[in-house]
Amino acid sequence: MVKVVSPGELKSLLFKVFKALNVYDEHAELIADSLVCANLRCVDSHGVSRGLDFINGIRVGEINPRPNIRVIREDSASVLIDGDRGIGIPVAYEVTRRVIEKAKRLGVGVGAAKNLWNVGALAYYVMKIANEGLVGIALANARARISIPGVKSAIVGTNPIAVGIPTASEPIILDMALSTAAFGKIVLAARKGEKIPEGWALNKEGKPTTDPKEALEGFLLPVGGYKGFGLAVVVDILCSIFIGAPYSLVISGKGPYTQGGFLIMAMSPNMFRSYDEFVKDMDNYVSTLKSLPKDPGVEILMPGEPEARCYKERLSKGIPLDDEIWGQLVKISKELGINV
Amino acid sequence: MVKVVSPGELKSLLFKVFKALNVYDEHAELIADSLVCANLRCVDSHGVSRGLDFINGIRVGEINPRPNIRVIREDSASVLIDGDRGIGIPVAYEVTRRVIEKAKRLGVGVGAAKNLWNVGALAYYVMKIANEGLVGIALANARARISIPGVKSAIVGTNPIAVGIPTASEPIILDMALSTAAFGKIVLAARKGEKIPEGWALNKEGKPTTDPKEALEGFLLPVGGYKGFGLAVVVDILCSIFIGAPYSLVISGKGPYTQGGFLIMAMSPNMFRSYDEFVKDMDNYVSTLKSLPKDPGVEILMPGEPEARCYKERLSKGIPLDDEIWGQLVKISKELGINV
Repeated sequence: MVKVVSPGELKSLLFKVFKALNVYDEHAELIADSLVCANLRCVDSHGVSRGLDFINGIRVGEINPRPNIRVIREDSASVLIDGDRGIGIPVAYEVTRRVIEKAKRLGVGVGAAKNLWNVGALAYYVMKIANEGLVGIALANARARISIPGVKSAIVGTNPIAVGIPTASEPIILDMALSTAAFGKIVLAARKGEKIPEGWALNKEGKPTTDPKEALEGFLLPVGGYKGFGLAVVVDILCSIFIGAPYSLVISGKGPYTQGGFLIMAMSPNMFRSYDEFVKDMDNYVSTLKSLPKDPGVEILMPGEPEARCYKERLSKGIPLDDEIWGQLVKISKELGINV
Repeated sequence: MVKVVSPGELKSLLFKVFKALNVYDEHAELIADSLVCANLRCVDSHGVSRGLDFINGIRVGEINPRPNIRVIREDSASVLIDGDRGIGIPVAYEVTRRVIEKAKRLGVGVGAAKNLWNVGALAYYVMKIANEGLVGIALANARARISIPGVKSAIVGTNPIAVGIPTASEPIILDMALSTAAFGKIVLAARKGEKIPEGWALNKEGKPTTDPKEALEGFLLPVGGYKGFGLAVVVDILCSIFIGAPYSLVISGKGPYTQGGFLIMAMSPNMFRSYDEFVKDMDNYVSTLKSLPKDPGVEILMPGEPEARCYKERLSKGIPLDDEIWGQLVKISKELGINV
């Protein structure tokens, strides 16, 4: 069963909940915006359900609701920010805001954040960058969950990569974790008593498994075998050792979605050519690819296009939330004295 | 049958061949170095056999042997270079040299090149960057060869991604194309009359195939399905529209390995922390991952570690070359009046 909620009402409710949990207004606004944006884009794993983890993290004292987000190092092209154990969204947003400024001035800006909780969907930040007419690349590392056959331990996190590229209309938005399948899909299969496909997971002994319950005690497999594993290692290093944050294996904290570090860069097409020519060519690129010969019913979708379609649909029809998720949000709201 | 050649002699021979083909000494030196480096690392697809393509490209007038490699745009953080239809190796090297300088001064440097032939193995450039104590990320786009089921045309190239990260000993070097399998493996299966695994290729009608001959007329599949496809699209755009070079579908030229564009960035750990701490933590990272519990005989290899091992072995034992490849090089050398 699902409850359909209007995006505006959902955002307003989330804002009130975080505010009631002592989160700064400005931060609560960003957190609510990021979560609702994820739900609107059909990325429900990073929407309200992620918000419930944040709420729990604040309540158990794991997350600092009023972090002093401060710059540790800054130079003309780079910035490093300490998130003071706060929810990662306002922290990552602050880094993003600064790399946008740097890229507008210098062509490129690189920023990082450490000592922060989960940043939500990376797409949110590269969309902000693309909306400014810049190319954005964002990386984050997470608690180790991926392994390779024969290894009896997780090695690296699902460490996502996101890229945002502006066009004259919808930006191209790639946002992908480096496991074959999302952890949430295995949880779902376990709940339904279904098998999972080969290539998704290993059991805790490092042996391939199609049993979701074994998989939940075990590890995820990297997308594309050693290629995805290599990318996950590289993202782990760039978000940890490179910036002075914890790597996937040593990320601490009780929550399931703590973050090691966050790295983002913004790059201006003006480094290489005029923005107008760039945008004109982008539109030509997308339309050329889309018009290639194909079977009836087949469509060539750009990265982020399914999510952009979902966004439009849910913006008008509302966001369907699992009764369980909605129920939890309502319960928490009432406990905090908020009328739903 | 194979001929085992000493790396020094092979490099010297390749240098003489390119010099005899009217290539500048300095360029011939870099080209020979890059090709031998690829063979030493067991990346034979980008070694002498790629060199034979270059030689042919010069002979048929496709490649400019004496390119005027010139800066089109330069700013404190960025540079764009025109390769004047030359072999990509000296062109990409020039970009790399400049982004290293920029990253040392500013923390980050972004460079691009267009109007160039193939750059060889991307690993070569990110190794140069890592050897300077910097992190390197390199991308290139190539002629379209990847498609997705139901599409009757190639869409994007195998568009490789490379990352180099310094450590106190061997740098971590990721260099991966975005197809499931290398084109060369399909050629080999066709020659041997063997089937290829599912998930490697489509026939020219966009239908999955395990017949290597059909695959050669058809298209490669992206690694990890839509994730690899999304990465290949993004790399294509960053190496083409972003910098003003041709995208995979419109790359012209007769050679099989023409390049669209090349994008590289160098980033200094000093943006975020002291280099000494970074290197110390890198070593700790590698040893921690390597000592995780695993089955006997299983090893956790860092990206680039198999290639680094091959390098050491071939440096002492010599480089084994297919008789066919060696024979072609000898024949060309003799035609050019070079004693082998």
